Amino acid sequence: MKRFKCIVAYDGTQFNGFQIQQNQRTVQGEIQKALKKVHKGEEIIIQASGRTDTNVHANGQAIHFDTTLSLTSEQWKRALNTQLPSDVFIKKVEEVSEDFHARYNVERKEYRYAIWNHKDEDVFRRHYHYHYPYQLNIELMKEALQHFVGTYDFTSFCSAKTEKENKVRTIYSATLEEVNQEIVISLVGSGFLHNMVRIIIGTLVEIGNGRREMHSIKEALNGANRKLAGKTAPPHGLVLWEVNYNN
Amino acid sequence: MKRFKCIVAYDGTQFNGFQIQQNQRTVQGEIQKALKKVHKGEEIIIQASGRTDTNVHANGQAIHFDTTLSLTSEQWKRALNTQLPSDVFIKKVEEVSEDFHARYNVERKEYRYAIWNHKDEDVFRRHYHYHYPYQLNIELMKEALQHFVGTYDFTSFCSAKTEKENKVRTIYSATLEEVNQEIVISLVGSGFLHNMVRIIIGTLVEIGNGRREMHSIKEALNGANRKLAGKTAPPHGLVLWEVNYNN
Repeated sequence: MKRFKCIVAYDGTQFNGFQIQQNQRTVQGEIQKALKKVHKGEEIIIQASGRTDTNVHANGQAIHFDTTLSLTSEQWKRALNTQLPSDVFIKKVEEVSEDFHARYNVERKEYRYAIWNHKDEDVFRRHYHYHYPYQLNIELMKEALQHFVGTYDFTSFCSAKTEKENKVRTIYSATLEEVNQEIVISLVGSGFLHNMVRIIIGTLVEIGNGRREMHSIKEALNGANRKLAGKTAPPHGLVLWEVNYNN
Repeated sequence: MKRFKCIVAYDGTQFNGFQIQQNQRTVQGEIQKALKKVHKGEEIIIQASGRTDTNVHANGQAIHFDTTLSLTSEQWKRALNTQLPSDVFIKKVEEVSEDFHARYNVERKEYRYAIWNHKDEDVFRRHYHYHYPYQLNIELMKEALQHFVGTYDFTSFCSAKTEKENKVRTIYSATLEEVNQEIVISLVGSGFLHNMVRIIIGTLVEIGNGRREMHSIKEALNGANRKLAGKTAPPHGLVLWEVNYNN
């Protein structure tokens, strides 16, 4: 038995999220379908670094699977991409040791979120940017973003239905760049709770448009109450950019 | 009666081209449907600078329509965008004189064509770039491109079914830029025959991959025979970038 790790890109627009579900088009479903074809009908279950929601994209999602077939990494890459639909692409395959686990061994993850801050929608960005047509104070947003760097209980910044008990996470770095009215925010952290990036972005936008005071961020980080944070920004601006492992 | 000119962007991915057709989703069909709603059921016919094929995009297609309604340009922009689907967007509306015609008054058009010259497909570019995974000689392509600048009979570079008798067109400028394996070719000309840009691009790619000799371009421009030029490059790399009028 061999274990392979894959780096996967997908355009989330036409998926009901990553995780497999009956009668839904999902990224996991498509990858497992491709694996099943290569295995001549044998069902193969993949493990991912984590789920992504409907309409969320990935540049570098990580997964692993086990197989008894004797293909090389390059052969796996070609075989799977041949079977996969055009909105999922395996960028890299490598053999890993059997104690590697795509979810349990995550050291850090980077998410990026893109905002199109122009009065007009751009048809070519509509699936990949949150279109925010009103003025934003970029400097205030940059300042606000730095409040999230560090180790905090992110209860205020996760979907109320999150079941994980431990909501303490560490954000190692957070940056915001604006070029020609396109804003890209990068968050690198130990892990992210459900909707955490999107709620941080929603809160930042409220800082940027002047409807929220800077001090409210510390209060939200200390208050452990979803109501203290901003709205959840839409999913389609979000990309799971990269997953790093400690190996 | 007032005449309005509109600059229109569209993502061609989910359209059967620009021109209205029975039982097909077309850009013209969607714009006329929006105009009909604003006119409370009255049918309004638009005129465009020209058609674009299935899967071809536009950043700045130009159209005009006539109306007896007394909306301002800004009101037209808002009213139409409210009715239009998310893959068509009216970027600008302006009132023009009644002798303006979106097709007959074209002075020049710019088309851009994007190639993703990387060994791997990029899921986020798959609808907007021609994925060409093999090596291309950029310098040879730049040299070849300059052969098209000038006034020529482009019979060899248009679809054999083109009905227009006069196939003489002028290309004013042609540029190619390559940045991080993304190649963008811009062609500015007096007008373009059916498939003309895509056949020029297909010919350039054959120069770039070494399967075509440089002298064959002059022969194709002089030979008036579709067989002398290269293959037609796929539509989804093509964008009608801008249309200019002499007023």
